[in-house]
Amino acid sequence: MMTTVSATSVAVLAALSCSTALAAAPAMKKENPMHTPVLEHYTQGTLDGVWKRPGLSARDRSIVTVAVLVARNQAAGLPRYLNLALDSGVKPTELDELIAHLAFYSGWGNAVAADAAIAGAYAQRGIKTTDSSAQAARLKLDEAAESQRARSVDNNFGAVSPGVVQYTTDALFRDLWLRPGLAPRDRSLVTVSALVASGQVGQITYHLNRAMDNGLTQEEAGEALTQLAFYAGWPTVFSAMPVFKEVFASRAQKD
Amino acid sequence: MMTTVSATSVAVLAALSCSTALAAAPAMKKENPMHTPVLEHYTQGTLDGVWKRPGLSARDRSIVTVAVLVARNQAAGLPRYLNLALDSGVKPTELDELIAHLAFYSGWGNAVAADAAIAGAYAQRGIKTTDSSAQAARLKLDEAAESQRARSVDNNFGAVSPGVVQYTTDALFRDLWLRPGLAPRDRSLVTVSALVASGQVGQITYHLNRAMDNGLTQEEAGEALTQLAFYAGWPTVFSAMPVFKEVFASRAQKD
Amino acid sequence: MMTTVSATSVAVLAALSCSTALAAAPAMKKENPMHTPVLEHYTQGTLDGVWKRPGLSARDRSIVTVAVLVARNQAAGLPRYLNLALDSGVKPTELDELIAHLAFYSGWGNAVAADAAIAGAYAQRGIKTTDSSAQAARLKLDEAAESQRARSVDNNFGAVSPGVVQYTTDALFRDLWLRPGLAPRDRSLVTVSALVASGQVGQITYHLNRAMDNGLTQEEAGEALTQLAFYAGWPTVFSAMPVFKEVFASRAQKD
Repeated sequence: MMTTVSATSVAVLAALSCSTALAAAPAMKKENPMHTPVLEHYTQGTLDGVWKRPGLSARDRSIVTVAVLVARNQAAGLPRYLNLALDSGVKPTELDELIAHLAFYSGWGNAVAADAAIAGAYAQRGIKTTDSSAQAARLKLDEAAESQRARSVDNNFGAVSPGVVQYTTDALFRDLWLRPGLAPRDRSLVTVSALVASGQVGQITYHLNRAMDNGLTQEEAGEALTQLAFYAGWPTVFSAMPVFKEVFASRAQKD
Repeated sequence: MMTTVSATSVAVLAALSCSTALAAAPAMKKENPMHTPVLEHYTQGTLDGVWKRPGLSARDRSIVTVAVLVARNQAAGLPRYLNLALDSGVKPTELDELIAHLAFYSGWGNAVAADAAIAGAYAQRGIKTTDSSAQAARLKLDEAAESQRARSVDNNFGAVSPGVVQYTTDALFRDLWLRPGLAPRDRSLVTVSALVASGQVGQITYHLNRAMDNGLTQEEAGEALTQLAFYAGWPTVFSAMPVFKEVFASRAQKD
Repeated sequence: MMTTVSATSVAVLAALSCSTALAAAPAMKKENPMHTPVLEHYTQGTLDGVWKRPGLSARDRSIVTVAVLVARNQAAGLPRYLNLALDSGVKPTELDELIAHLAFYSGWGNAVAADAAIAGAYAQRGIKTTDSSAQAARLKLDEAAESQRARSVDNNFGAVSPGVVQYTTDALFRDLWLRPGLAPRDRSLVTVSALVASGQVGQITYHLNRAMDNGLTQEEAGEALTQLAFYAGWPTVFSAMPVFKEVFASRAQKD
């Protein structure tokens, strides 16, 4: 059976299913038997428990993990976690959006590799997504905030790379971020996860603030760091934590 | 038919063909059909247009892109872009030099993977390159500038890692950089692209200045950032842009 | 013949074999014939000599190199260097520990890929390791130093990510680091190599100090940088050298 899913219906479903995602979380499937028993010991004894922690839904954990693997081009691990994402309530059209989003935020080659990695899961499940780019309505843009962002970037870098500045406005903030197929909060979670995973500490402040403006709670952001520690490694998280701390503090002052 | 190309003849051809490379640029070949329609939408609607922008030749764009993929060890995408580089006027011996250059600047494993990735393209085109390392003349060295560089690095790090300091002089600046098979300007473009792609922001100032001393224009450097945004991701470029800005400004003051 | 090796016997053997490792170092095996002659030229003419330099044993060089490849998820190169590590006196149970260690320090996906890469070498050599996690004694913990570390991290980040802080204590410093299957000095060498290779400069100060407290000499650390320059690339090493320099200087002042 072929299931064709449109982006707009998914946006509604995602909103509805959000609160039930945690309850419906599938058990973390057992890894294939490993060749090194110490890694198996920690996978079963430690990592499996991470997925069951409160503070971040299994759906969010799968989004964070897929974002890490795409951002670091770890295609070998992707099929497993793309399937886990689908099992955890991430819709196929949401995965399509995630991959295209990371084309811009991690590099085109990373996205092309992820696109190839998803073929098996889609084929096995009879999923065929269609793109609604042309006809789909876009999310409402906060014109004032976007104008301010664009002005600031143009003042800073307009003479350094006119092309980057132009695409940042036209392709990213006036198009990609407004696509309804992935909720802005999830799009931000993907972005922040990719930034942490690839050590892009300098870009976290803007995007973590944006993520929290888009609805990611401080508890979720902090627990995403736990998920990231296991999938992107302790050092990347320890390099990112001071920035998270500053963002949390600066937002607390404003309240 | 086997074509054997020597490094010296290539250096001359490269100089001759440089101005015509843009005109002779082959059309960006269509990606294989993708499994996620959103990525396909942006590949056709946005990325394809990047390759046709003025400000940087298709030859340069292919050099930047191959450098990104080698620097980030994205072997799966390499055959496509190595072929595109050959179609865009990059000579086989120049690709050989690019790969060996990135052994030093991105890591030996990255270069070995690129070496494996090039086998298909060379076999298909009947290309067999030979190494002229032994007999080839080396480019003329600016002894004063090199002595100053070596003294500065030795003062700084001679006691930290004598081995690194020694190979930096003997293998890199008195050998690799003087090989005639890849123009210094192209070697610099490869280096700067790899630095941006792997987030090595601290090393950009020296190498971007060197690139511009070697003939890379500010317009080309700025447009290389546009190419890099798409292939290495927006965050790496936004982390690099402040350094590019500083280098451009400091050079403008000197003029 | 199946060889089952326990972690405890290995710890003793490692200590005994340490001084003889250099003498017993196997010759660096020739790479497969390469397709680009310039890379082959530098591999034979330059890289091969690096492995024979004094200042760091072949065993240590193989540990550094495997750590680089796991940290950067360069699975294609792993079988060759895992075999070289085994030939250089690294015990299978030590490799098991190295891989599990890097699950935490480089990301779980990196370790899973390394686990897959080791299968061939183990099968070919009839090696089957067993895990002694449950019964094995742990190394003695310096309670005062660990309490201070935990307090400092908790004060800094306890409110940012309680999960990260908890696992850092429970899984890393009160468990992983105390496993006897890999000497603390070697565990530190793995950690520092991974940090340099992945550009995590901010985390080097703590771990290089720990490495030297664990017995890594300044000469070895400096020569590890030479090995890292070739396998992780010059820029990562030039970004790390100022931190190494500071650590060396601050320790010299204390003496």
